Amino acid sequence: MKLTESTILRINLTSQTRVEEIVDPEAFQMYLGGRGMASKIIYDEVDPAVNPLSPDNKLIFANGLLSGTSAPTGGRYMVVTKSPLTGTIACSNSGGFFGAVMRRAGYLMIIIEGRSNKPVYLSIYDNNVEFHDASHLWGMTTDRTTDIILEEFGEKRARVACIGPAGENMSNLACVINDKSRAAGRSGVGAVMGSKNLKAIVVKGSHVVEFDNREMFNRTIKEKISIINEHPVTGEGLPALGTKVLDSIINQNGLYPTRNFQFTTFESTEEVNGEALVNKGYLRSNKSCFACPIGCGRDTVLPSGRSGEGPEYETGWAFGADCGVSDLIAITEANFLCNEYGLDTIGAGATIAAAMELYEKGHIMREELENGPELKFGNSEAIVYYTKKMALREGIGDRLAEGSYRLAHKYGHPEISMSVKKQELPAYDPRGVQGHALNYATSNRGGCHVRGYMISPEILGVPEKLDPQELKGKPDWVITFQNLTAVIDSIGMCLFTSFALGLEDYTDLINSATGYNMTPEQVLKVGDRIWNLERMFNLKAGITPDMDTLPERFFKEPIPDGPQKGAVALLHKMLPEYYKHRGWKKDGTIPDSKLKDLDMKKEKVITMKKSG
Amino acid sequence: MKLTESTILRINLTSQTRVEEIVDPEAFQMYLGGRGMASKIIYDEVDPAVNPLSPDNKLIFANGLLSGTSAPTGGRYMVVTKSPLTGTIACSNSGGFFGAVMRRAGYLMIIIEGRSNKPVYLSIYDNNVEFHDASHLWGMTTDRTTDIILEEFGEKRARVACIGPAGENMSNLACVINDKSRAAGRSGVGAVMGSKNLKAIVVKGSHVVEFDNREMFNRTIKEKISIINEHPVTGEGLPALGTKVLDSIINQNGLYPTRNFQFTTFESTEEVNGEALVNKGYLRSNKSCFACPIGCGRDTVLPSGRSGEGPEYETGWAFGADCGVSDLIAITEANFLCNEYGLDTIGAGATIAAAMELYEKGHIMREELENGPELKFGNSEAIVYYTKKMALREGIGDRLAEGSYRLAHKYGHPEISMSVKKQELPAYDPRGVQGHALNYATSNRGGCHVRGYMISPEILGVPEKLDPQELKGKPDWVITFQNLTAVIDSIGMCLFTSFALGLEDYTDLINSATGYNMTPEQVLKVGDRIWNLERMFNLKAGITPDMDTLPERFFKEPIPDGPQKGAVALLHKMLPEYYKHRGWKKDGTIPDSKLKDLDMKKEKVITMKKSG
Repeated sequence: MKLTESTILRINLTSQTRVEEIVDPEAFQMYLGGRGMASKIIYDEVDPAVNPLSPDNKLIFANGLLSGTSAPTGGRYMVVTKSPLTGTIACSNSGGFFGAVMRRAGYLMIIIEGRSNKPVYLSIYDNNVEFHDASHLWGMTTDRTTDIILEEFGEKRARVACIGPAGENMSNLACVINDKSRAAGRSGVGAVMGSKNLKAIVVKGSHVVEFDNREMFNRTIKEKISIINEHPVTGEGLPALGTKVLDSIINQNGLYPTRNFQFTTFESTEEVNGEALVNKGYLRSNKSCFACPIGCGRDTVLPSGRSGEGPEYETGWAFGADCGVSDLIAITEANFLCNEYGLDTIGAGATIAAAMELYEKGHIMREELENGPELKFGNSEAIVYYTKKMALREGIGDRLAEGSYRLAHKYGHPEISMSVKKQELPAYDPRGVQGHALNYATSNRGGCHVRGYMISPEILGVPEKLDPQELKGKPDWVITFQNLTAVIDSIGMCLFTSFALGLEDYTDLINSATGYNMTPEQVLKVGDRIWNLERMFNLKAGITPDMDTLPERFFKEPIPDGPQKGAVALLHKMLPEYYKHRGWKKDGTIPDSKLKDLDMKKEKVITMKKSG
Repeated sequence: MKLTESTILRINLTSQTRVEEIVDPEAFQMYLGGRGMASKIIYDEVDPAVNPLSPDNKLIFANGLLSGTSAPTGGRYMVVTKSPLTGTIACSNSGGFFGAVMRRAGYLMIIIEGRSNKPVYLSIYDNNVEFHDASHLWGMTTDRTTDIILEEFGEKRARVACIGPAGENMSNLACVINDKSRAAGRSGVGAVMGSKNLKAIVVKGSHVVEFDNREMFNRTIKEKISIINEHPVTGEGLPALGTKVLDSIINQNGLYPTRNFQFTTFESTEEVNGEALVNKGYLRSNKSCFACPIGCGRDTVLPSGRSGEGPEYETGWAFGADCGVSDLIAITEANFLCNEYGLDTIGAGATIAAAMELYEKGHIMREELENGPELKFGNSEAIVYYTKKMALREGIGDRLAEGSYRLAHKYGHPEISMSVKKQELPAYDPRGVQGHALNYATSNRGGCHVRGYMISPEILGVPEKLDPQELKGKPDWVITFQNLTAVIDSIGMCLFTSFALGLEDYTDLINSATGYNMTPEQVLKVGDRIWNLERMFNLKAGITPDMDTLPERFFKEPIPDGPQKGAVALLHKMLPEYYKHRGWKKDGTIPDSKLKDLDMKKEKVITMKKSG
């Protein structure tokens, strides 16, 4: 199986048929797999106006260029579709082992079309594809689903990606869970899977990716692993504390959103941070994804004996500071429930936080909770209780399942939803980091930190320290970070490698693996191309440029506490320059000249039937 | 097997030998089995000065007269020993099925003597007794221990009583757990079992109790069951909400001890009461003990899927209001951990509450918590975390395991322990119920509500409503309740029947079962005899009458909140009359005349070798 000639599996669930295709080799180099290539397919094949939960939407499980190889962190896959949460194109990225094994099973990508008339799951073993009835799995949690499928499949070392009850119930916050605890988390991609009546995909295979020059690739990998191991963030901080190394840093910098972004410092940070997870004895061990030299995963066990993966920084924050909760057991339990029921932890936690503000301000009434715990900030029971209600759409959980924007809108107060393009913001207050604010506002999948992680330079000083309140130069930084991230996603590597690696390193990895001879500028242009492609889809889908904004709280309410006290978001001082440097029109639309620059062959379908 | 000629099994763990004995028939009628008869054996055979955790202490598993018969709630057994927590004689009472099945296995009582040199468990099947190595079970939770023993014993319907890690670690708060979730809870009887290296007893049998007049007994039972079913407390309140029917009642009456008895009303009662347990969906079903027509047990399941029995009123209060915690999930989880690790829930919760007051007042320092959660009132994580630490004696858990009195004493503030005779008080503030206060102070096993439950008349109005602040007549009420309770315990019935049944009813049951022709006065005299016997043991053990008192808070600090605001305990206005009406000397000791009145044959051993 040659790296750049990987096969695509196209499944039609309506007709329960399959066909194999390959990608145009030229297109391969233009998008480098994963996010880029899958977005191109969605762009070419899906009407941007489609109802995301209709059979006409498509759902792509996409490996990146290096997924399944021994490139460091080369185990990532993406789920690409039109999002029911945001209405934008969505790409949710996950680690674990599913992606790598899916490639070994024979496929770079799996395109899911149509809708089955009853619950099904797919098994794939070295290009042998079978449809199975999944009626007996419907309603089951992801861990139980995984166990049963592995037993039925008879291959213990196979890998499963599936949805839980939240996906079946088409919650806008539903994710796809693979390997029991890794999530393609955001934008409701699990709801699209649920809308298709597809419960799971199980993969196993023996294919090995071939390289033109295996020795050169290995040498490059070895070099990059050394860089990763020697960097303080990827070599020390992340292995020791996982992403939860960030809690104290972000809190100390006055960016730690507390009580639905009403405050920026949390008084109980030391009770819930990464150090606490270790010191309280809940951390059992690190956990690594496929081919990962970092190992930021948290294998945890609670005093009750309940165990699982997490919490990560964002999860711990969403159920913790954002809900005002200082009980690390409850936070971790809410995380476990999200994994088991298939909910995005950021979306679920942040939606409960919004509900708490709505409740405390008298918009949600006590009766609506139907005897459930009070939705008050700090209520540890509430985060566990309503997470499950949300997954099952029971009682007020039915409204929570729609996400914070639709919830707050329902009560006439959309401004209480801390979201961009209806997707909940993650754990950094944008008023305190202006570059990151610009990134939030312009992200192609709505509120997101992993589309251009400006926290890295603005707070962590990687690759260099920028003043978080300085505006000058920030649009260019954001553009570069957004483009580079699109490349890292597309090649199937983990974004965390970018703390240690730079554009040149990724270029080395791409060239040594493929035999391409791309310059760093050409590689970055791939990212630019992907970014513009996503934007084109969104514009056609009715996601207008005026939605490149932030919740009004960040403009109207200066930060009331902490080191960034008094700050507001200065987005509109940066946005014109951002549009300009993106090569866009003043109104935020994309001129043909930009598309020409990017060599974008509009409307050309990039897949073709596999010969032979 | 004749009811009044039941066999006693005497086990010596040091020599791993056994012998069968029977009780003198005359003595049987004097003590009626259970608490009375086992206390007489302890009194006769154990030096009151003995170290409770030495091999010279004895541990008796005792059925009552009617245990294992179809008398309503006739499934109770008791564990009687000298307590390591209080230094008094102790009798801890439990339901479930173990006691009834132990009688079917052939025994009214099992007397455990000595100490095994390695962990053992006993199996008993129709008088066949075997000793088994229990090294593989040491360290295991009670549920796991039970499962493994049932598997090894090969009899699924057998019944197990065992200790968890808390008993092995000889915590003063360790209990004996039978049937996985019923507890002989108080006074540290599990530590005595642990000190003997006895992990468990498993029983099964086919013996049936014979009656002289089965028809008359059945008729009497039927009549008493009707009374129980028709009473609002036993026929409605307890089945619907379990003992947690009390939360709101006791809170509304301003007796609900909050934050280690600093307050008497809890602002979050509605979040944690019996109604909440039902309405939040945590209650799966009622659960009944052997032959019980009430069914107050709570079979619960949490959103995490963790399930078990509880919380009862006392447990919910101890981890809830007493610790200021309003998270019903955390409260229930702490309960499950107590069941699994073998801890008394009242003692464990109340000790954490005392630790919280010690911490908030600056006596326990942050460093001593070794990175554990802060010991602040309201911290839901702390109650779960420190319960487990206590059972395992890890970190500060080693001090908590000693109970609140020794903990508070260690920090120089014994007054912060809300205990009588070093045993933690249950869920009723004595300042608001003077009769109950007198009962607390004079209880023979220290702080306890089930030695003379004056809440029944003083608050619930059963059998008639008394003013809780009135002193007149209270000593006589307390004496009668204490004596009657000793009878109910001894005949192996549940104290909850006394909401519906009176002295005459119990007399009917005793006479119809045995053929005795006792008057109600004679039956009550049995209770008086037992009470005095226990007192005699305690006096010899150095439990002096000046220990018939309450924590100084109840005398010095008037209730600061709620309907009983301003009240203090008026114990010393009642105690002289109590002593006098007990027939005791002014100094609280027992004159020979009283013993003569009670026909107590001092020092006479009441058991004899079984003939044939």
